[in-house]
Amino acid sequence: MAEHKTITAALIIIGNEILSGRTQDANLAFLGEQLNELGVRLREVRVIPDVEDTIIETVNTLRQAFDYVFTTGGIGPTHDDITSAAIAKAFGTELARHPEAEALLLGHYKPEDVTPARMKMADIPVGATLLDNPVSKAPGFRLENVHVLPGVPRIMQAMFKLFSHELVGGEPVLAASITSRVPEGTMASKLGEIQDSYPDADIGSYPFIKDGRAGACFVVRHPNKQTVNAAAEEIVEAIRGFGAEPEADERP
Amino acid sequence: MAEHKTITAALIIIGNEILSGRTQDANLAFLGEQLNELGVRLREVRVIPDVEDTIIETVNTLRQAFDYVFTTGGIGPTHDDITSAAIAKAFGTELARHPEAEALLLGHYKPEDVTPARMKMADIPVGATLLDNPVSKAPGFRLENVHVLPGVPRIMQAMFKLFSHELVGGEPVLAASITSRVPEGTMASKLGEIQDSYPDADIGSYPFIKDGRAGACFVVRHPNKQTVNAAAEEIVEAIRGFGAEPEADERP
Repeated sequence: MAEHKTITAALIIIGNEILSGRTQDANLAFLGEQLNELGVRLREVRVIPDVEDTIIETVNTLRQAFDYVFTTGGIGPTHDDITSAAIAKAFGTELARHPEAEALLLGHYKPEDVTPARMKMADIPVGATLLDNPVSKAPGFRLENVHVLPGVPRIMQAMFKLFSHELVGGEPVLAASITSRVPEGTMASKLGEIQDSYPDADIGSYPFIKDGRAGACFVVRHPNKQTVNAAAEEIVEAIRGFGAEPEADERP
Repeated sequence: MAEHKTITAALIIIGNEILSGRTQDANLAFLGEQLNELGVRLREVRVIPDVEDTIIETVNTLRQAFDYVFTTGGIGPTHDDITSAAIAKAFGTELARHPEAEALLLGHYKPEDVTPARMKMADIPVGATLLDNPVSKAPGFRLENVHVLPGVPRIMQAMFKLFSHELVGGEPVLAASITSRVPEGTMASKLGEIQDSYPDADIGSYPFIKDGRAGACFVVRHPNKQTVNAAAEEIVEAIRGFGAEPEADERP
């Protein structure tokens, strides 16, 4: 553990529609899982409105605090898509027509669909590197450690998979989940003891109610497989000590 | 509009399981919709890990910046439930056994289930007001403008509905949604003009892909019904101008 630097990330979800409850975000869960596999720990997520000052302040705070920052939302063709301009301001750079992005869009749209609004998607902060969009062509971009992605999950996910190999991660964290119908209150004391035996493991308890009965899923996280397995085995023993058996994993 | 103060809120989602992507949050969408109906604007959401210093700093930043703050997660019986203690520290107060909370738990559990771990859920920051839990009894609490709730959506929602009438909202924001298969890039210019005609309305464009075809949902938000309807009617006319008709609402 000690030889490895922990690599951290933050996600900024930009969009009034998420805050109003109208749209259920799907990007956080995707990025959390993907980054974890790459050995990057997603440490903070902020959901903010389409307000320029808020975007600028949030980006500038988080890009200092984390190794990687990802933003989703606000890079489309309409008047409420203000992320690219706000990112340029956050970095003190200009927004300018990017020749490669322009060529991508001109090659994608029929001539009658080439509108000023669509070509706005070729305006990229100066100094940024484009991130390819295999679905609808309009690119995202990376500026230093900030990766600017669209909000539509299918497009965001396809783009992430094209550049994720470039992210430099630390040690991946391995996890084991053990679900049972022993309530977490019953397990709590024993679980605390197990946590104390493995102080650098992260042991979480996630209660649920299903078919009118309480249960809990216990998750052990640690970079070392032996440690994960040993702690998980102690949790299984504790569950059996309460006369129950582990069940198929529940994802509440 | 000008006579009404805008009432704002922030939500803090506390939990490693959300950041790891293991658990899909469901509390943001619920609270966003409910607060909107009460005339409270959810302006920021932060998802943070179960780390005491992070909880303290986040709570203290957001409770100054917003009229209401809600937290979800971390008030159960296990070792990783550290929210109540962190909130006490954020407010510079003590965590102490709350007689009413204690009585609720003692009345709920069978004698053999009364464990120190479960009774930890009766430790509440001094000065807080309990928030009733009609599902599993262990209460949440309110300290000044901060409402501390559990993470399990069913319990959180039941609790919110018991105290939400006490929240003092401003003017509710009304919304109209218009969905069509006219791509947002085609509508963008016209939509920008409509936004300019209704500068204090919030007009959003949310693209989607369904059955392999692009479409977009346009949402108009404003406290005044006439304004919402007038802007929505102009959007419908614009869609017809592109030879299409509005369709049933899509929620991407």
